[in-house]
Amino acid sequence: MPEGDVRTDPIDLLADLPAADPDARNAAAARDAILTKPPGALGRLEGLIQWLAAWQGRARPRLDRVQALVFAGNHGIATQGVSAYPAEVTAQMVANFEAGGAAVNQLCKAFGVALSVHPLELETPTGDITRGPALDHIGFRAAIDAGARAVPTDADLVCIGEMGIANTAVAATVCLGLFGGRAEDWTGPGTGVEGPALDAKARAVASAVTVNRADLDAAGNDALETLRILGGRELAAMAGAVAAARRNRQPVLLDGFVAGAAAACLMRARPDALDHCRAAHVSAEPGHRRLLAELRMTPLLDLEMRLGEASGAVLAVALTRAALACFDGMATFDEAQVSGKA
Amino acid sequence: MPEGDVRTDPIDLLADLPAADPDARNAAAARDAILTKPPGALGRLEGLIQWLAAWQGRARPRLDRVQALVFAGNHGIATQGVSAYPAEVTAQMVANFEAGGAAVNQLCKAFGVALSVHPLELETPTGDITRGPALDHIGFRAAIDAGARAVPTDADLVCIGEMGIANTAVAATVCLGLFGGRAEDWTGPGTGVEGPALDAKARAVASAVTVNRADLDAAGNDALETLRILGGRELAAMAGAVAAARRNRQPVLLDGFVAGAAAACLMRARPDALDHCRAAHVSAEPGHRRLLAELRMTPLLDLEMRLGEASGAVLAVALTRAALACFDGMATFDEAQVSGKA
Repeated sequence: MPEGDVRTDPIDLLADLPAADPDARNAAAARDAILTKPPGALGRLEGLIQWLAAWQGRARPRLDRVQALVFAGNHGIATQGVSAYPAEVTAQMVANFEAGGAAVNQLCKAFGVALSVHPLELETPTGDITRGPALDHIGFRAAIDAGARAVPTDADLVCIGEMGIANTAVAATVCLGLFGGRAEDWTGPGTGVEGPALDAKARAVASAVTVNRADLDAAGNDALETLRILGGRELAAMAGAVAAARRNRQPVLLDGFVAGAAAACLMRARPDALDHCRAAHVSAEPGHRRLLAELRMTPLLDLEMRLGEASGAVLAVALTRAALACFDGMATFDEAQVSGKA
Repeated sequence: MPEGDVRTDPIDLLADLPAADPDARNAAAARDAILTKPPGALGRLEGLIQWLAAWQGRARPRLDRVQALVFAGNHGIATQGVSAYPAEVTAQMVANFEAGGAAVNQLCKAFGVALSVHPLELETPTGDITRGPALDHIGFRAAIDAGARAVPTDADLVCIGEMGIANTAVAATVCLGLFGGRAEDWTGPGTGVEGPALDAKARAVASAVTVNRADLDAAGNDALETLRILGGRELAAMAGAVAAARRNRQPVLLDGFVAGAAAACLMRARPDALDHCRAAHVSAEPGHRRLLAELRMTPLLDLEMRLGEASGAVLAVALTRAALACFDGMATFDEAQVSGKA
């Protein structure tokens, strides 16, 4: 971590965030209004174009370079049996991503998305949050910085996702820390935990917040401190990437529950921090729907997916490509000599 | 219409329908189970693969040829002011489809879908259903037959949609005739009718069912007779195409409200008639959600689209391509040396 880089200081992570470009948004809406369809008939596809235009600052947005980022981390809480799979699977799946064998690789190929994978000290799991904080300040800043560095400044759209055995338990804990409620409200099967093991997972989530309560209170419930204390490296990196994309005025598609929990820390720290983000989908993981309600985000897709690895975000790229194809390729009423409203 | 072609006789339209292939479905599910993801984690994408496999009769389904069919018709009821656009727009939009300028053209290009457009006697609108039946038996059979002939027998997947000024009023009337309720339940803005004009549209829908009640009753509420009396040429053609695809054991993606209303007549005539169909999306047209509930179909997409012209169906092709890319390209747990459940 470069010393003195205030950009990576959690306290300054959300300082001086740029806003969207209303002129580009309005110009895109003006073109949309003359294309051969009733106004609004392409529904949310039209909204996607205005969102891309506003954040790219281009009346004619581009999707020449779409970048998916997958951050991977390991978690001390995995030793508590909160996942259906052993912790070694995190590194094995990173190898699978690198070899091109995972779902996200196929989706990236199908929809013209570049993929980069960022394993974060997999050999050193974070602290077990049922016993103390996940990360110290140094480790947290390093993970945030790794996320920020992973964002290519020339990407037109950034998809953000993760891999990490036990990280739905971590995301549930972060959500419980941020939003309260009961541990059961935020805890779900993840990769397939059920029955008594699911009850035990919820108890571990509740316990993690209780154990770290003094530290959370000492931090005045600062949402970025919640992320450091209850989160994990891939969550911190996703938060860093979301914030970096915002500084670059790049639109972001958030993947599922774990990416959403990381992003939620930014929104709790600064309410407009996620204005450049869209929820790509709602996961089958039950906490995600509740989280999206807290984020006031309507997901683009609802396909009962719960894979992570940015799969939902990359699938939603298909919708942005569809929207842009229509926006770029459709004839206007004048060009096609189609009559307007009666 | 070729005489003696029993295939096009409405009465025989739904005779001897083939069933899905359970062996192909099971073989696809078996491969899915060994791919590097938790079981079920790709959600409805996995169901799409099993559906394609079952109807194509292939353990490894294909999407080499995906065909979109757009049927266009004009309607006597258009003279009642039930649309925001003049009736001439139907033919103008057919020209726009043929010139490549419409939304569906761009979506077809984006997702590798072949498009064929079928205008049906646009110069001769159907009878005004607020005064009598839409079609006589000869005209109805001709339209059904045109739909059946439009289905290429080598297509791996068929998308079915329409264009026709005033046809959301027609679809609402068909739904009211099939399912009852109030005209207001089925009547919506279509291309943008609102306020008093929307009230008048609902009154026209109610009136059309009342005026034709004796004929509907005389037909014993035969659902195909409902389609003839209250429908229109593009609706009849869509029903013919859906039935022809079933005879060919081809999976079908239904577009929006109007396509759904046409297909609903088949399901009311024979409850299993739409087993090879999936609802591509739910339209912003409010009657569509109600209709999908009657059809017991869960839409793949919910993007507030309301354009017709098969746009929602072609957009959903992206999901089937995503599903097949994962199914074909992912490594198995053994191939990737990823550990199974703990």
